[in-house]
This record gives sequence, structure tokens and C-alpha cells, in this order.
Amino acid sequence: MTTYPTSLGTSTADEIRLLGQDLTEDLMGSVGFGELAFWLVAMRRPTPQETRVFEAVLVALADHGFTPTAIAARLTYLSAPDSLQGALAAGLLGGGSRFLGVTEDCGAFLHAVVSDLGDELPTDDAGWDAVALEAVRRTKEARRFVPGLGHPVHKQGDPRTPVLLRIAEEEGLRGPHLRLFEAVGRVHDQVLGKRLPLNGAGVCGAALADLGLPVEMLRGFALLARCAGLLGQLAEERRRPIGMDAYLSVDRNAVYVDPES
Amino acid sequence: MTTYPTSLGTSTADEIRLLGQDLTEDLMGSVGFGELAFWLVAMRRPTPQETRVFEAVLVALADHGFTPTAIAARLTYLSAPDSLQGALAAGLLGGGSRFLGVTEDCGAFLHAVVSDLGDELPTDDAGWDAVALEAVRRTKEARRFVPGLGHPVHKQGDPRTPVLLRIAEEEGLRGPHLRLFEAVGRVHDQVLGKRLPLNGAGVCGAALADLGLPVEMLRGFALLARCAGLLGQLAEERRRPIGMDAYLSVDRNAVYVDPES
Amino acid sequence: MTTYPTSLGTSTADEIRLLGQDLTEDLMGSVGFGELAFWLVAMRRPTPQETRVFEAVLVALADHGFTPTAIAARLTYLSAPDSLQGALAAGLLGGGSRFLGVTEDCGAFLHAVVSDLGDELPTDDAGWDAVALEAVRRTKEARRFVPGLGHPVHKQGDPRTPVLLRIAEEEGLRGPHLRLFEAVGRVHDQVLGKRLPLNGAGVCGAALADLGLPVEMLRGFALLARCAGLLGQLAEERRRPIGMDAYLSVDRNAVYVDPES
Amino acid sequence: MTTYPTSLGTSTADEIRLLGQDLTEDLMGSVGFGELAFWLVAMRRPTPQETRVFEAVLVALADHGFTPTAIAARLTYLSAPDSLQGALAAGLLGGGSRFLGVTEDCGAFLHAVVSDLGDELPTDDAGWDAVALEAVRRTKEARRFVPGLGHPVHKQGDPRTPVLLRIAEEEGLRGPHLRLFEAVGRVHDQVLGKRLPLNGAGVCGAALADLGLPVEMLRGFALLARCAGLLGQLAEERRRPIGMDAYLSVDRNAVYVDPES
Repeated sequence: MTTYPTSLGTSTADEIRLLGQDLTEDLMGSVGFGELAFWLVAMRRPTPQETRVFEAVLVALADHGFTPTAIAARLTYLSAPDSLQGALAAGLLGGGSRFLGVTEDCGAFLHAVVSDLGDELPTDDAGWDAVALEAVRRTKEARRFVPGLGHPVHKQGDPRTPVLLRIAEEEGLRGPHLRLFEAVGRVHDQVLGKRLPLNGAGVCGAALADLGLPVEMLRGFALLARCAGLLGQLAEERRRPIGMDAYLSVDRNAVYVDPES
Repeated sequence: MTTYPTSLGTSTADEIRLLGQDLTEDLMGSVGFGELAFWLVAMRRPTPQETRVFEAVLVALADHGFTPTAIAARLTYLSAPDSLQGALAAGLLGGGSRFLGVTEDCGAFLHAVVSDLGDELPTDDAGWDAVALEAVRRTKEARRFVPGLGHPVHKQGDPRTPVLLRIAEEEGLRGPHLRLFEAVGRVHDQVLGKRLPLNGAGVCGAALADLGLPVEMLRGFALLARCAGLLGQLAEERRRPIGMDAYLSVDRNAVYVDPES
Repeated sequence: MTTYPTSLGTSTADEIRLLGQDLTEDLMGSVGFGELAFWLVAMRRPTPQETRVFEAVLVALADHGFTPTAIAARLTYLSAPDSLQGALAAGLLGGGSRFLGVTEDCGAFLHAVVSDLGDELPTDDAGWDAVALEAVRRTKEARRFVPGLGHPVHKQGDPRTPVLLRIAEEEGLRGPHLRLFEAVGRVHDQVLGKRLPLNGAGVCGAALADLGLPVEMLRGFALLARCAGLLGQLAEERRRPIGMDAYLSVDRNAVYVDPES
Repeated sequence: MTTYPTSLGTSTADEIRLLGQDLTEDLMGSVGFGELAFWLVAMRRPTPQETRVFEAVLVALADHGFTPTAIAARLTYLSAPDSLQGALAAGLLGGGSRFLGVTEDCGAFLHAVVSDLGDELPTDDAGWDAVALEAVRRTKEARRFVPGLGHPVHKQGDPRTPVLLRIAEEEGLRGPHLRLFEAVGRVHDQVLGKRLPLNGAGVCGAALADLGLPVEMLRGFALLARCAGLLGQLAEERRRPIGMDAYLSVDRNAVYVDPES
């Protein structure tokens, strides 16, 4: 007989258990939603300090306006208004490598470098700068991008970056990933020949990694945050629709091109 | 020139705005994630009392263990581990009428009855019982189900129901939808001929409706809650996989049936 | 021990069976893809005549250019180019009630009327006109739309409609659903007070219903057809991308609106 | 003014164009569905010989019974029967690297080797064997798998492989990718130390590459084929459901594990 082990939800006729807790006695009304989301993945309850940083990240990532994913969700809702879940899913499916993956990529990049250091973490900025310089150099040599650098709009600096660093500092959670990320910000121009801002998606990845969350799941938190943002987009699409205009602005300006050309 | 109005995210080179607020100054570190999710849909910031009830609902709905949606997400992850967003989307796509729609259906059912009452709300339980009796009667006559009644496992009572009622009472938010739902619980057997428990999905819909959230979006909150639960399921699938066993338990017990039969 | 009956694919070490056939001996190289799709749903192999009508429907529905679903698929590919399946799924999720559902709605509408007639089908156009007049009248009285009527672009007549009727006639498959649909086209203005063209999605639904396919699955054939079209859209997005322009044309013309307004 | 170039669907009030053709005059009733799918991606109409090989591939890939993707689609349908498109999309989302990606991976692997050869293709089996030996050796040195080798069930040989080779030979389309694939089958044990069968997904990838289809889109054809198969699965789930049993077989055998363990 195959059995299926789990530490998540189980229930009997009288009781519902989740994460080793009694759902109704221990969790409902006592645990915040962000706190629970952290717990569900990390298998430990975050401290209030961790929860504040974690929720600040989710708030930062929730909505960026008319992104491709928001437009895709609204167009899907236009076509299939009977299925809110379909419109939401369509929006989340854009959460891949390019627009929503930076958080995970940056967290994973920093985590790989920090893990290699083992217990010998630098104790000052100069030490972190040396580590960062080497990491950026190797990344460039491998012809890969350093994740978390640059932004199409916030060219002089992403306003989220200093704020999240401040919040992490306030909560005693400005750990090795954030310190390394700051060092990357200080030294990358020596290798890349140009100065780029540390972007918000990147600093979020660094902060999540400092919270000890598994780096393979970081994209998942960006998706959770975006889920709330997409609900806002879909609620607005109901109140003040733009999907039809967005569709027609493409369709009416279609130009036929000979397939041979 | 077509323009696209929005009250959600917009940004300039220096500033990111969301919901009429400065994202970094007013929201990050100051607003919880559940609070923001409420705000994004309702277009107003919830009070601390409203936030506590709202998050209790999200916590109640986050994970119910090996539901069809959780299994679908895990099987999708098994097949396509390179795309976390795809596995999450597959899980959310099960958020339709049958397993995740009760919250919305129940909220909408109660909201229709409460709206018909206008300003003349009952002032005591007897008054609500009369309203509920009439509503259940009409629903039965239309050969439809009263949403929020019955549960396959919690046959003697869903433990979430009294707890959410208590939390709403504590926060001064046990409003007309919850009162009507309780009345449905008291009187339905007079019409249906059997006594069924008020289920957790239903009481969540009633509580969300009492928070003034648009009933057409209630399914969206169930999906947001489930998004966190599915991340927990997928993180567990990484740590302690069951997808392959679940798949093989079906495939190995397949029995070919003649198509003509 | 739970077993799982199926008439679709099963295999042993030596043989792969599908629909009661040997996949490699009986199907590969002998059965067309459209033919197999029909067979998989209807559980019987279509005749060459049925296959021609069926494939004409799929060809008619495959691509309609820059529809909301095509744009959603391209925007999702822009965001997550690593997951072709995600972009395709996002496009298909728009296959709901509004843009892709007409085929199913029309087939179901006609099928309900034809089923009510039992064996007493009209034998001439005048007979069908009477049936159609009554059906349109009842639909209007129920304040519902008659599916398959009207088109935003082809206001004077959808060019697909006469062509599909001709093909069905050529193959001896212009059955009761198509005849009733034609009759709706002749008489609806007597009830609705205006003359609308019979649209292509509607005639496809009628033709599929005449092929004996289950009306609850008709949307599925529209989705299959669209799957091919979306692959074309995504291949073109690789060769000659428009997703970024479509996204920017919305995002750059965003106008912030006070949420209170 | 932004314009959006396309060679796919466009329409005026009187005419619908697709791929430079008049949809109703040139395509409906004249072009098969598989033929059109090929044309939409390759931007050229396939010959009858190419169509036969192409459709044989689609037939081979359409359904493999109770795969994880088929079960995910059925479970999603169980949860949300109101949204066929959602169940179909959930199934397709499993079309990733592991279960459905072999076709694309194998085609891409072979294409890279063949492209490197330029015009100097081997003229006999011995020549292909040398090329294959070198390719397998380099792949193993890079610690990667050779795609298209091995099968969990068909350990002594996948019955699809010889049949597809025969069909391609009959149509004069057994080109360099198929020849190289056969050579891989002859020589790989010299490098890998064990003899594995050439699997059906792999030979399909080789055949599609020999048809000149873009290797980055090969996964798309596997998805199209699977789309038909999933419709069959969902139609069967309506007729003879197994989703509830599959779900309960997991849920009833859930075993709670302490999260700390």
C-alpha cells in the first residue's frame, strides 16, 4: 500500500492540522498571512523581525502596473470572464526568466557565492568588495549577466533598494546576501565598465536569501506577491476595463507581411 | 491616442506609486501583505480589525492537504520541474466551481439576500431565522443547492466555522452576512429535512462579504490563499516527493476497457 | 485495490495500444491527426467525409490574427521565453465564454432544439423556419442571446459560413443542426428586428454537432484548432516579435487615476 | 504610430486571409489540419510526403495513457468542470523538460551535430557511426544525458521507433537527423557501457528536425499532439471518471510527518 507523507494539511472529523499545528486553535486569528506563507515553505515560523522584512518584499513585488503579465491577465479575463482562475493563471505564467525571475536569479547568484565562503565571511565592506569583485569577474568571463543590476526606468537608482536595506538593518537582518549585493553595487563598474543601479527585484532576492528561504523557491514568493497584484489588476479591469482597448490597439494596427519576405 | 487609466502601479525615474501611495515611503515596511491584498481589490486600506479577520480567512483557506489541486500542481512539477510558475498555475486552475468556488458562491448567495433587505435588516436572531428560512426555501424551489452547507469529512461540524465567527465577533465584524449564515445553519433542516454543518469555505465567504469586499472577487481571495498553500506543497514536493508515486499508483492500475462497451 | 479503466493509451513492454488499436501497426502513418482527434473524443473513427468537414472546421478556427488570446500568449512568451508550454497555456486560457465559446454555445443551442424534435424532423425549409422562429422567440423571451449571430467585422456576412455549408453539402453532412442554423439566419429578423450575419464560429459549432460530436466538448475542438494557431503566433513572435511593442504601447500610455475618483 | 506586422490571420469586412491565402477559398476543405499546423510554423506548405511523416509523429505523441499530465488535467476538471480550457491548460503545463521535452531535446541535440557538419554529411552508416560516437562521447564528457535513449517500459525497444523510420523511408524523408539518431542507437553502448533503446519521443524529434521545422518549436508540436490526447482524456473523464478515485487514493493514504523530522 502506497502512503503519502506530508507535514502540511491533514484532517480528521474533528480537527484540521497544518504544519504540526491545530489550524483553528493555533493559527487562525493568531498568524498573519505572510507569516503563514513563509512557514509553509521554510517549515518554521518566522520571527516578527523576519515577517516584517518578508512582507516588505512581498509588498515591493506585488504590482508594477501594466506589465506584460498584467496585460495578459486582463486580456484573458476579457476573453473568458467566467474563469477568474484562468485569468490569474495566465498572468502568473509570465513569471518566468525575464520579467519575474530576477528575484530568484539574484538570490541564487548571491547564495552560490556566499555558500562557497563557508564560515569565513568577510567582516567589513572591503572584504565584501573583494568577494564581489571576484564574483562579478567570473560571471563576466562566463559571458553571463550579473543578476540584479540595471533597470529600464530607474536608471539613476531603484528607490526600493535603499528602503529594503534600511528595513533589513532595522530588523537586524542585513545578512551576507544583502551585504554582498551592496558590494556588487559598489564594485561592478570596475569590471563591467559602466555603473548600473541595484534593482528592486534583485534586492528582494538578496533579502529573501538572508531570511534563509530556499533559493530554488524564491520565484515562488515573487509569484505569490504578484498573485495579489493581479487580483488588483483584475478587480480594476472589472471597474474600469482597458483590455478591449489594448487588444484593439494591436489588432487595428496589424500590417500584413508577405510570408516569403 | 489611446490612454490606459489605472490606480495601481505607476512609476517615474525616481518614484514608484501604488494605490495613490509612494511605494517605498508609505507601503514597504508599513503595510502587511494581507493588508495590501485587501487594499488592491477594495481600493481602501482595511482597519486592523478588518485585517485580522481577512488574514484569518486566508489562513483558513491556504491549504487543505492532498486536494485535487495540490496533486495536480505536484504532478505538473514532476513533469516540468523547470517551470515553478507552470506548476502553480496548474494548481490554481482547479480553483473553479467545485472545490474552491464555495467561498464565492456562499458570499454571493448571502449578499443577494442581504441586498434585497435594503436598510431593513433584522435586529435579532428570530428575524434572521425568518429571512434565512425564506431564502433556503426559494433556493430549494429553484432546485439549487444552498452553498456553504455540508462537508465530506467534518460531518458533525467544521471546526473553522465557530472560530471564524468568534474572531469576527471579537473585532466587531460579525455583520449581516455572517448573521444570515448562522441563521441558515439554524433553520435549513426545516426545509431540507436534514441537518448539515456550516462549512469552512462558506463561513469564509460570509466573512469576506461582511468586510465589504466585492462578491465577484471572492474566489480571487481563495486563490490567493491557495497560492501560498501550493507553494508549500511544491516546496514539500522538492523535499519529500510524492508525485511519482501518485502517478504510478494510477498508471500501474490502469485497466483497458473496450471502447465499444 | 482501486483500478482505473480507460479506452485510451495503454502499453506493455512490446506494444502500445490506443483506442483499441495497435498504435504502430494500425494508426501511425495510416490515420491523419485530425482524424485521430475526432476518434479520441467520439470513440469511433470518422469517415473520410466526416474528416473533411471536421478538418475544415479546425482550419477555420485555427487563427484569427491578433486576438486577445494571441496577444496574451505573445506577452507571456515575452516574459517567460523559457516555457513555451506556459505561453501556449496562457493563450488557451482565453478560450472561454466570450471569444472562443461561441462554437460550443451555438452547437449546444442547436442541439437542444434538435433533440426536442426527436424523430420528427422537418422535411423542408419552411418546416425548419417554423422551428427556428419558435426557438429564437423563446430565447429572446428568456432575455438570452441567440448564439452564432453577428460579427464585429463581417457585418454583411461571414465568408466562412457559406463555404462550410457547401463543404458539408458536398460530403452529405448538411444535417439538422446546419439546417436549423440556416433557418435561424433566415427568420431571426422577424423576432429580433434586425438582420445579423450567421458567423463562422457558429456555423462551426453547427457542423461539429452534425458530426455527432458531444456538444459539451465542442469548445475543446476550438481549443485544439487554436492550439495550432497559437504555435504559429509564437513561432512568429520568435521571428518577428511584437510583444514588447504591444506591452509598451499600453505601459507608456498609462494614466494615473486617483483611486477615490 | 506603432504597427504590428504579421503573416498570419488578418481580415477585412469581406475576406479572411491566413498565411497569404484566402482562408475560405484556398484553405477550408482543401488543407488538412496537420498540414495547416506545419504551415503555420514553417511558413511553407508541406508536401504530401512531409504531411504523412508529420501526422505520424503527431499520432505517435497524442496520448500515452495515464501520464502525470493526463492525471493533472483530469483532477483539474474534477475541481473546475466549468472550465474545459483550464483543465486542458493544466495538462499542457506538464509539457516541460521531463515528460514531454525529450522530443525537442533530441531534435536540438541532433540538429546541433548535423549543423556542425555543414555540407560534409557522411554518405554511409560507417560515416554516421563515427559522427555519432564523437557526439555521444562529448555529451558524456560534459556530464549530460544523450536525449532519446532509454524508456521505463519499452526496455527492449520502443515499437514506435522502427515504424517511424519506415514511414520516413517510404516518403523519402529519412534524412540526416534520423540517420544520426540511428547511428546513436548503434554506437552508444561503446561509450555508455550499456545498450538502451531509441525511444519514441526521440525518434519523433529526429523526424521533425528532418522535416526542416525549427528545433526551438519542436516542443510545440508535442504539445499540439498532446492537446488532442488531453481532449480524449477529458471526454473519457466525463464518460467514465477516475479523477475522484485518483484523488482519494492519495488523500486517504496521507500520513502526517512531523515537520521537524
